[in-house]
Amino acid sequence: MTKEHIYLDYNATAPLLPEAHAAMVGALSVDANPSSVHAPGRAARRIVEDARRDVADLAGGKAEHVVFTSGATEAATTLLTPHWTMGRAPVRMSRLYVAATDHPCLLSGGRFEKAEMTVLPVDGNGVIDLEALEKVLAAHDRTQGLPLVAVHAANNESGVLQPVEHIAGMVRAAGGVLVVDAVQMAGRLPLALDSGKIGDFVILSAHKIGAPKGVGAFVGRSDLMMPAPLVVGGGQEKGHRAGTENVAGVAGFGAAARIALAGLDDMKDVTALRDRFEATVKDHAPDAVLVGGAAARLPNTLFFAAPGMKAETLQMAFDLEGIALSAGSACSSGKVGPSHVLAAMGLDADAGAIRVSIGRATTENELNAFAETWERIVARRAERRRSAA
Amino acid sequence: MTKEHIYLDYNATAPLLPEAHAAMVGALSVDANPSSVHAPGRAARRIVEDARRDVADLAGGKAEHVVFTSGATEAATTLLTPHWTMGRAPVRMSRLYVAATDHPCLLSGGRFEKAEMTVLPVDGNGVIDLEALEKVLAAHDRTQGLPLVAVHAANNESGVLQPVEHIAGMVRAAGGVLVVDAVQMAGRLPLALDSGKIGDFVILSAHKIGAPKGVGAFVGRSDLMMPAPLVVGGGQEKGHRAGTENVAGVAGFGAAARIALAGLDDMKDVTALRDRFEATVKDHAPDAVLVGGAAARLPNTLFFAAPGMKAETLQMAFDLEGIALSAGSACSSGKVGPSHVLAAMGLDADAGAIRVSIGRATTENELNAFAETWERIVARRAERRRSAA
Repeated sequence: MTKEHIYLDYNATAPLLPEAHAAMVGALSVDANPSSVHAPGRAARRIVEDARRDVADLAGGKAEHVVFTSGATEAATTLLTPHWTMGRAPVRMSRLYVAATDHPCLLSGGRFEKAEMTVLPVDGNGVIDLEALEKVLAAHDRTQGLPLVAVHAANNESGVLQPVEHIAGMVRAAGGVLVVDAVQMAGRLPLALDSGKIGDFVILSAHKIGAPKGVGAFVGRSDLMMPAPLVVGGGQEKGHRAGTENVAGVAGFGAAARIALAGLDDMKDVTALRDRFEATVKDHAPDAVLVGGAAARLPNTLFFAAPGMKAETLQMAFDLEGIALSAGSACSSGKVGPSHVLAAMGLDADAGAIRVSIGRATTENELNAFAETWERIVARRAERRRSAA
Repeated sequence: MTKEHIYLDYNATAPLLPEAHAAMVGALSVDANPSSVHAPGRAARRIVEDARRDVADLAGGKAEHVVFTSGATEAATTLLTPHWTMGRAPVRMSRLYVAATDHPCLLSGGRFEKAEMTVLPVDGNGVIDLEALEKVLAAHDRTQGLPLVAVHAANNESGVLQPVEHIAGMVRAAGGVLVVDAVQMAGRLPLALDSGKIGDFVILSAHKIGAPKGVGAFVGRSDLMMPAPLVVGGGQEKGHRAGTENVAGVAGFGAAARIALAGLDDMKDVTALRDRFEATVKDHAPDAVLVGGAAARLPNTLFFAAPGMKAETLQMAFDLEGIALSAGSACSSGKVGPSHVLAAMGLDADAGAIRVSIGRATTENELNAFAETWERIVARRAERRRSAA
């Protein structure tokens, strides 16, 4: 059943790449702890360190600044803390600034108290209100500590991009630290961490780029200023993250990072295909509303609402026809609730919206299957409308 | 090279079981996020929930009380916090009690400040000083909060077992909460969480029982009183641990848990084989000292020191002969430092000790290879002694 499903839900998780699968299976044959000093241990260590270079390359950063975690959520909880160090000296971040459309792993505030957080509004396209950001940064009380700003660079539901370069300049001018959740951006748009144009730290998730679930990383422009470790115990990851490394997962992450970086040029084809999905939606339902349609968006994401159709019901209708897509995000256990992203944009969060998110493996046949199903669903709506009239 | 090594380092990580490998590969073919509500998402969810039952069975607990984490260290950092809740009401643990030989993931204190911790002494065999525990529990100031006690049930370096049932009774009498690090005990000795005899929570690590690295769990006797989540964001694991589940890792964990539970009866064979390793060590070096030899120990672990031989050098000598074993533990990145376990037992931590840790797959041929190598190493010591005399 699963294998026959047409999968249009890449933003929830991308299908495992064959290269990542092969790297994992290879790593699984090395039976050792990468912290062991014997020969098998050193072989496991090499796998981790090779992958570290590949992940650094994807981020546009340096291998020595990559800290592997169990995923993006752990990376975010690690970075979103008031407690930092510069060398051995403590540095305090006295306030966290996030945006209302951010992913729950940022919006939760990590290790900040709710009272230490400011949630910034977004416009009707889901773009952060830069004037509001300017204002709060100007008002930030530096005697209490530095401002920490966290931005969901490309929204997981809408695909809307934030003006990260502009925000990076503002945060730098305010003497703050900028954390960029690049989970959905990685492998779809270039990342150039060391240029300083996308902030001080990026957060990455392996399973969104075709590697397995359960591994992620954060990468800094330097390791001069670092967050207090979240997971503590042994001295792994230079003391920044304790616990035996997920060697097979990390190996898969490295392989997928290589493919993602090499495949960035193919994104224009993905954009073209996504645009055809978009045209199909409009062809059959001219009243469909494209969420964030006027903003710069990810190449692979389409988020739309159709009057008179609840997204949750639509999602089930597609599922019954063998098409996996989503109504909002998939970040809580099987629960479909009103989308906070739509609500923040001033749209109808109860009605919801349908997310189609594709990848380089998405085919024209899959587009055609989607189109046929969509046509049938819209026809049923027309029937309902006629019988109600 | 790696494949030809004789692996006697199970306490650092156990070789991947074929059943865990197969379960992982199966899970990797399900391309979906287990929080997605479509059919592929539901298939991923089933994999996680099936594994949850298997892990609960290994712990002797209930599936609904299993919280999956990225490993034992994350589980420990989650549980070792002053901030707990009972239903919605906050509950404070005002002091953490650990033992001097505990694993770094307990000794680090998790989310407790150093000033909120008491480190208890152990005797010459590495067993917690129960009188000292009795005394500190009697002196615990309940007006500030409850006592939280954490015990490394079976030491990773020495294999020494703590009198957990006795400790559980003491902690219960003191109205406290007992966290048991059962990482090395799981699959080697029975766990019966729901009996109340091994405390309120057990910590498990997948890769120590033949599953992949990067996954673990904590299992409670109930979920009435729970620690404040460590990793926050989405609502996964009933809100106790955010982040997309490591589906393939969890699948491997479940498979290994089944094998571990079914294989408990084979542990008498493992004990017999370990005893022959021990006899071999003594045969060639009658002056070798068995660490924790007078205490109850794990069936699979042998920790010994030989006068005039530094463990670090011994470990390298074995490695050069194709035998992987360890000098102490493998919990920090490739660093071999003085063992805090030996130091706490009043032994020579600088000289160190050699750990041989085996499993059900360890063979008589491997014992023979170890014996031959050991004989050669001891002969070289004898030569050195003669030429020095």
